[in-house]
Amino acid sequence: MTQLFDKVAILGIGLIGSSLARAIRRAGAAKTIVTFDGNRAHGARALELGVVDQALESAVEAVTGADLVIYAVPMGAYAELAALVAPHLAPGAIVSDVGSVKMAVIRDLGPHIPEGVHLVPAHPIAGTENSGPEAGFAELFQGRWSIVTPPPGTDEAAVQRVADLWRAVGSSVEIMEAGHHDRVLAITSHLPHLIAYTIVGTATDLEGTLQQEVIKFSASGFRDFTRIAASDPTMWRDVFLNNREAVLDVLQRFTEDLTALQRAIRWGEGEQLFELFTRTRAIRRSIIDAKQA
Amino acid sequence: MTQLFDKVAILGIGLIGSSLARAIRRAGAAKTIVTFDGNRAHGARALELGVVDQALESAVEAVTGADLVIYAVPMGAYAELAALVAPHLAPGAIVSDVGSVKMAVIRDLGPHIPEGVHLVPAHPIAGTENSGPEAGFAELFQGRWSIVTPPPGTDEAAVQRVADLWRAVGSSVEIMEAGHHDRVLAITSHLPHLIAYTIVGTATDLEGTLQQEVIKFSASGFRDFTRIAASDPTMWRDVFLNNREAVLDVLQRFTEDLTALQRAIRWGEGEQLFELFTRTRAIRRSIIDAKQA
Repeated sequence: MTQLFDKVAILGIGLIGSSLARAIRRAGAAKTIVTFDGNRAHGARALELGVVDQALESAVEAVTGADLVIYAVPMGAYAELAALVAPHLAPGAIVSDVGSVKMAVIRDLGPHIPEGVHLVPAHPIAGTENSGPEAGFAELFQGRWSIVTPPPGTDEAAVQRVADLWRAVGSSVEIMEAGHHDRVLAITSHLPHLIAYTIVGTATDLEGTLQQEVIKFSASGFRDFTRIAASDPTMWRDVFLNNREAVLDVLQRFTEDLTALQRAIRWGEGEQLFELFTRTRAIRRSIIDAKQA
Repeated sequence: MTQLFDKVAILGIGLIGSSLARAIRRAGAAKTIVTFDGNRAHGARALELGVVDQALESAVEAVTGADLVIYAVPMGAYAELAALVAPHLAPGAIVSDVGSVKMAVIRDLGPHIPEGVHLVPAHPIAGTENSGPEAGFAELFQGRWSIVTPPPGTDEAAVQRVADLWRAVGSSVEIMEAGHHDRVLAITSHLPHLIAYTIVGTATDLEGTLQQEVIKFSASGFRDFTRIAASDPTMWRDVFLNNREAVLDVLQRFTEDLTALQRAIRWGEGEQLFELFTRTRAIRRSIIDAKQA
């Protein structure tokens, strides 16, 4: 139990925010944890659950006196919230977040960071398809990666304090340039989610009886996609709007590859299919070897 | 323990064939279980594991005297094997299979079914990404669907005996027209596999360091696709070659939907994204309600 912060303010107490609050408390990493959530019922519920010490009526109250402020709201809400709380940030405070895109965070929060306050964005690679303060749990970050993406010139001590916090809740930490993070996540996370949303959407447009059977026989592969496609709509809308270039780039590559496969199926080119299917099997092996399976 | 068959011959003793042999034995549904596998090492291993009573040197030996013959080889091998064993099938025997496409089975096996022998194709909706006789296990079919697709005019008693076998190994049974089966599975299984293979393939083409990081940070969505894309290459090549029309049809719908999403991302149309993401979340709920999650 090492106390790393005095007062942590978590803005937004959904799946990630409430998991982080629980994990920080369990690690004894903060003296006080407070929250503000635009959905007052979420704040009240988090307080009832004992996840936070206080659920405040305004973001300004929440950040006042905090030495760590963590944005855990959908990314579309960052800029407005940041403008509002900027004058109330304590000198020396650290501002961080848990968003899935990092260049956009620097773009949206950067202009609202006063002199003497440190912006250290972060992204825990963890989550479930569930939402809200009740969906959170303290173990969410254990054994997972958290990527910290400080802008160039960020105070090194502040970066280390954020890294220490993520280690305290059980994560491994990687420091990465924000743009590089966004390109990696575009392929490992954003494209898979986009594809899953699309295929489940395609299925919902089927004629009635066929749609019933898609649900009934979903165990044959489709089911895995529906789990991914059940993720929070607001969060994912904001991811795609905020990582547009990197997502469109990998989507273009994907579409080219899919078109080539489509052609191979149409012309009965079995060897091309077999070659790809053999190659992809090897990637699974790499992931098992990297203990990420 | 109800013995349904006297001698069951399983042609091909990989994941599905060996799981079925184990499950039939555990259910006491056959007096004798024999196998022939073109890969002699697989047959020998199955015998060592005690999965079958005999591993024979030829398919003809295996089917001789069998009252049930089950094809569990990749679908591309059906026609040749069927021509070979046809003259040796016992009068009144039932020929079935476990293939993922059913119209093609009727096309490939149908011409090689002698008068008085019954063709009753079947497809257990069950599997893992692993292959070979050691990958099998008796519980694979428990609580899963098995779809039986008899051609029009098939002997009803033979259909019921095949249905009873699948029930004996723990499956629920659905009787369906073969073409309809192929359209349902094209969306629930074949398209998801094609997409997963494609996206994992796209990732393998990335520059070296980026590819390393894709593996390292795979937990963010990509990992689920790699599991699907680790499935048996030969089997899946044959699925796509044998369900071409239905796969190309759903692929066309999918591509249209993906193009529309791509456009929405490019033009920042958040509402369209949000609307889809909300709709797909509801489908997940249906699957949970249908107890298929």
